[in-house]
Amino acid sequence: MRDVAIIGIGETKVKEHWNKSLRELATEAILAAMNDAHAEHVDALYVGNMLSGVLGGQEQLAALVADAAGLRGIEALKVEAANGAGAGALHMAYLAVASGMYDSVAVVGVEKMTEASNCAATAAASMAGDADYEAMLGISPAALAALIMRRYMYEYDLVAEDLAGFSVNAHANAAHNPHAMYPRPITREAFVKAKMIADPINLLDSAPLGDGAAALILTGSDRLNGNRATAIRIAASTVATDAVTIAERKDPLWLGSAEKSAHKAYAQAHVKPEEVDLFELHDAYTILSTLALEAAGLAKRGTGAYLSRDGEITPLGRIPISTMGGLKARGHPVGATGVYQVAEVVQQLRGCAGKNQVPNARVGMAQSLGGIGATAVTHILMNN
Amino acid sequence: MRDVAIIGIGETKVKEHWNKSLRELATEAILAAMNDAHAEHVDALYVGNMLSGVLGGQEQLAALVADAAGLRGIEALKVEAANGAGAGALHMAYLAVASGMYDSVAVVGVEKMTEASNCAATAAASMAGDADYEAMLGISPAALAALIMRRYMYEYDLVAEDLAGFSVNAHANAAHNPHAMYPRPITREAFVKAKMIADPINLLDSAPLGDGAAALILTGSDRLNGNRATAIRIAASTVATDAVTIAERKDPLWLGSAEKSAHKAYAQAHVKPEEVDLFELHDAYTILSTLALEAAGLAKRGTGAYLSRDGEITPLGRIPISTMGGLKARGHPVGATGVYQVAEVVQQLRGCAGKNQVPNARVGMAQSLGGIGATAVTHILMNN
Repeated sequence: MRDVAIIGIGETKVKEHWNKSLRELATEAILAAMNDAHAEHVDALYVGNMLSGVLGGQEQLAALVADAAGLRGIEALKVEAANGAGAGALHMAYLAVASGMYDSVAVVGVEKMTEASNCAATAAASMAGDADYEAMLGISPAALAALIMRRYMYEYDLVAEDLAGFSVNAHANAAHNPHAMYPRPITREAFVKAKMIADPINLLDSAPLGDGAAALILTGSDRLNGNRATAIRIAASTVATDAVTIAERKDPLWLGSAEKSAHKAYAQAHVKPEEVDLFELHDAYTILSTLALEAAGLAKRGTGAYLSRDGEITPLGRIPISTMGGLKARGHPVGATGVYQVAEVVQQLRGCAGKNQVPNARVGMAQSLGGIGATAVTHILMNN
Repeated sequence: MRDVAIIGIGETKVKEHWNKSLRELATEAILAAMNDAHAEHVDALYVGNMLSGVLGGQEQLAALVADAAGLRGIEALKVEAANGAGAGALHMAYLAVASGMYDSVAVVGVEKMTEASNCAATAAASMAGDADYEAMLGISPAALAALIMRRYMYEYDLVAEDLAGFSVNAHANAAHNPHAMYPRPITREAFVKAKMIADPINLLDSAPLGDGAAALILTGSDRLNGNRATAIRIAASTVATDAVTIAERKDPLWLGSAEKSAHKAYAQAHVKPEEVDLFELHDAYTILSTLALEAAGLAKRGTGAYLSRDGEITPLGRIPISTMGGLKARGHPVGATGVYQVAEVVQQLRGCAGKNQVPNARVGMAQSLGGIGATAVTHILMNN
């Protein structure tokens, strides 16, 4: 396969964008990414989005966004994999360039959730679960994560506070990210006192739903032209799945899709887990950070949470995560999140992450989950 | 790019499947296609679907279907492009095999529409239009097609009955298709007397919404093994778009996306329009058959409807269309339709189309539209 590189990134701030439509948010991110890539045109556009139909009454979003962004006529398709949609769209863009079909491709992840009532947004987000066997019973994503977290705490003798470090780190990093929804530090004390959402998951355990768009421009590594200095290579792009219904999994405390996807990515990129310099993982809930670290082979089973206690996940630690705030503090516009993560890894590998810079970052990994790990999409990026 | 072939097809009947869920329909088609391909496993699955979220409360459909079909763990993503979703999923599968990422890939298009009320199904289908500038005003797809048909009749001095031949041909062909929703002939007289839906479009002008699933198995042409005799090569796979809002197009009587997509496909396959032996086009409304024939260069502008009067579109005619019933009589489960079309072209190129066989069919084209041509996906298949 042909080598593929990312040569442009663009992001809107994540927040409540009540005055901007889906197409406006997407256009803003695409044009920023094209500007960053010095690209006047692209051959195709892949859109990651979960809920434009359910919350916005709009399907066929890709053609709509292509036209709004001044790209009328080009190939455009939407990819959906619940919260993993944005990363799924990147995977498709990767295949389009790797195959030789196209030289220049745009990816945008976009989502608008905050115009809906909290109730409607939660019901919509619950469509990431099994409609017949989970959502129908009223089990929201937070409730599913809570069941898993409670069992994890029981099995490994932890208390909820043991996971506080994930959120403290995320918020500390978001403070220096101009695109973050909640750019302010939180204390361990605030975490402990936070309002309960679905016991044992509290408000500061869980990522806020938001509106936003992030975009990337990809090209073949043989077509870098003036972008050689800032180009970041996609060393691996992998997708794996698991049962959607958590009760159907062999072990509810193990993210099989994340394990498969990460290990396929290590093989494709020819890197070992210990060579990963930073890991943008899917911290929708602190328990998912824990499980993702274990599934990726970066912590032994039952020990993922310890990393958050020992300072190993900060930008200067052994395995930095959520370096620009993560889903937790940058905010989680579900179908857009996977693209934000990769844009953040690009910033790190370019050495442009400012106060959050991971020193000498060379290998960055991003992993996006659909639902509670029914889908996992992993990308490994390298700056050489 | 690597050559790609289709080695397996599977279809459920299109009808009101009230006793089968989305995952059951999809599984039935996938297993039939795997059986046809003598495949015990596939590396990835791409699902084409438009409305699982809006009508079924289920996003993340691809992981769900992969698991139901006994393929838990594999890469699985959903592609959405309104009615063009199924063909879009095939395009993605094509890229996955053409890139060398995978050797064996499944595609399934699946949709369930008939459990919803007619009103809800129409509202959902209207999400293929522009939510802010069309659907919001109450304009359904039939109403959009009616506006175009009325203008076309005015410009080219036709009456509605001049388009009757498209539906008569479709129903005549469906009579021999065991998977068709309405497998019975209709007369020109019945067409003229049919109930009006959106003047000048009547009931027999428009394709019925239905439930169903169709699947394909793809592999690299270098991996045909025992499937050499039945393999059909994908000579071209292209996607193009246009403004979603019809009022924004330069000419509402010209399908720019269909023209771009078809001509890119001719170039990729190295065939001329006159070499196409059959054309499975998107006959959701008779006016769309007319416009698709013109956009593909198979009829001069303003003359597409004449082909239906002169018997040129029957299986024994100059340019056979809707050879197994088309959307009109096979039925139109929107996100699945694009895959049905390609499965039907495969039957023709294998010489297995029974009483509907196009003699000596060698080059087959399938074109699926999203909405009224905001997206167009074209595939050219060849049996050598």
